[in-house]
Amino acid sequence: MNGIRYDVIGIGNAIVDIIGRCDDDFLVRHDAPKGNMRLVDAETVVSIYDDMGPGVEISGGSAANTMVGIASFGGRAAFIGKVADDDFGKVFAHDIRAAGVEFASAPVSGKAPTSRCLILVTPDGERTMNTYLGISTELDQGEVDPDAIRASGIVYLEGYLFDRPEAKTAFRQAVEIARSAGRKVALTLSDGFCVDRHRGEFRDLIRNGVDILLANEDEITSLYKTDDFEDAAQRVAVETDLAALTRSAKGSVIISKGQRIEIPVHPVERLVDSTGAGDLYAAGFLYGIATGKDLATAGRLGSLAAAEIISHVGARPETPLSDLALDWAQSA
Amino acid sequence: MNGIRYDVIGIGNAIVDIIGRCDDDFLVRHDAPKGNMRLVDAETVVSIYDDMGPGVEISGGSAANTMVGIASFGGRAAFIGKVADDDFGKVFAHDIRAAGVEFASAPVSGKAPTSRCLILVTPDGERTMNTYLGISTELDQGEVDPDAIRASGIVYLEGYLFDRPEAKTAFRQAVEIARSAGRKVALTLSDGFCVDRHRGEFRDLIRNGVDILLANEDEITSLYKTDDFEDAAQRVAVETDLAALTRSAKGSVIISKGQRIEIPVHPVERLVDSTGAGDLYAAGFLYGIATGKDLATAGRLGSLAAAEIISHVGARPETPLSDLALDWAQSA
Repeated sequence: MNGIRYDVIGIGNAIVDIIGRCDDDFLVRHDAPKGNMRLVDAETVVSIYDDMGPGVEISGGSAANTMVGIASFGGRAAFIGKVADDDFGKVFAHDIRAAGVEFASAPVSGKAPTSRCLILVTPDGERTMNTYLGISTELDQGEVDPDAIRASGIVYLEGYLFDRPEAKTAFRQAVEIARSAGRKVALTLSDGFCVDRHRGEFRDLIRNGVDILLANEDEITSLYKTDDFEDAAQRVAVETDLAALTRSAKGSVIISKGQRIEIPVHPVERLVDSTGAGDLYAAGFLYGIATGKDLATAGRLGSLAAAEIISHVGARPETPLSDLALDWAQSA
Repeated sequence: MNGIRYDVIGIGNAIVDIIGRCDDDFLVRHDAPKGNMRLVDAETVVSIYDDMGPGVEISGGSAANTMVGIASFGGRAAFIGKVADDDFGKVFAHDIRAAGVEFASAPVSGKAPTSRCLILVTPDGERTMNTYLGISTELDQGEVDPDAIRASGIVYLEGYLFDRPEAKTAFRQAVEIARSAGRKVALTLSDGFCVDRHRGEFRDLIRNGVDILLANEDEITSLYKTDDFEDAAQRVAVETDLAALTRSAKGSVIISKGQRIEIPVHPVERLVDSTGAGDLYAAGFLYGIATGKDLATAGRLGSLAAAEIISHVGARPETPLSDLALDWAQSA
């Protein structure tokens, strides 16, 4: 396509994950909703951290993970997000650039620290997230580089941005620029609780501005306030051109203009840590769409990337996804 | 023993490891001596970091890793080392305390940053370390708490401390306090290049002040300027009461008062990252000695802990060593 420098540009929170293991009692003790993400204040993040076991720090952030996944497939990706001028900010910026993602945002000094997320992994491999947003709350319109948006085939936005008014403005601005440049807009609903907080606005945006929707079962049923996945799937089919709905062990469903494609999960030896499963599914799917693959192949690339990420700790790939994709293509 | 609060107290550099993978060419390009540790300045650490791939951050530091290992076996451990009041300092302090090690050192504000080590792991699992000492260079006599030393059965010192005059003074002070309180002094030679820098002083210290010596093949042969391990082993037998010499895949040799005990390696499915192998061997060995095990058992606990640590990324145990020790005791 003319003037395209990036297959996908992501906008989201720039986060370093602090990953530790805990039992279910720990989650109860800290009122952490298992399997979900919640925002915590500076005091709460300290109180959880003081109580949790030793951690491992790995760069994270939902849309950032997805961009790293796209680059790992060999795609051209860029990311917009805010970091502070501290150790974690340097770690985030280094890791995303070292992964081959364009990251132009300058660190901010003397304000809040870089965002961090305490990720508690229970013995079943499920992750529960406690995010302290820090400097990410400063992400606003000024961060959205119109030239970069126009130079991207797809603009990918994380729903988490809706938790802050300034970020929401930046989000809407990015959507407008992309649409007027004829680019596609993709959205992930991010989290069931997040959908609960912004249901009306998400539905409005999906009807008027989103070309590609990514959501898991929890999120899509929350969006339509139903307990029935099939019910939600039928409703989303009417409201958007293309949706990829992930269902954990049940695989995923792609819905597009009357088509419905069931995608199986990619086998994984052991579920170690589910962190990033949705982010990496999105990476494979968007990489497939951006590079002109058919929907079924795009979905399979999503499953492949999700399988890689849940087989180890952290939400950044340890094995080049381009290698895995090649192996898969040869064996298929 | 009377007045004993800690089985072992360690004194060393408080470091956060930044672990990434690279090929051998990368090491050549950055003049990094494969398999060794070198000190780098602020400029060099940035230039290597800018060039290396995405990393994972895990608390490290040689003696600190050993203390965490001892606590993981169920032993009582304390650590003395210096951190700054930054993200990495908070990570280090959290992780060591969360692992059950007493760590009383207060963070220092407004001076150098917390020490970090860029650890480059090559495809063969070997690690090459580039340490930027930062605030660790401020570790001096003031840090050595005489009460804590007197309350510890063994004082464990890392040879790396000899690289800085102030730390060396603190080191010697700790030795004196321990000896006059009737406690044992243990020393690790740390690294072949480190031995090369301080050979005379190390030999002097071993003859006059060290009860338990830990060294790998590279270090012990460097100490006696010989290519022959057996030659070095015979010489160390004369100069110290107890030495545990590790030989990577060849296992280890314990030498004590005319005895020589060969300890096999503990089997490991896959060598992922050799970082911390020596530190964790020391943990098992010192835990065994401190809790009155015979030398062969102490050595086997060392092998067990080393096997755990090389089977994953990072130098802090992922599985409680007390569990592994129990399994091993039951199967033996």
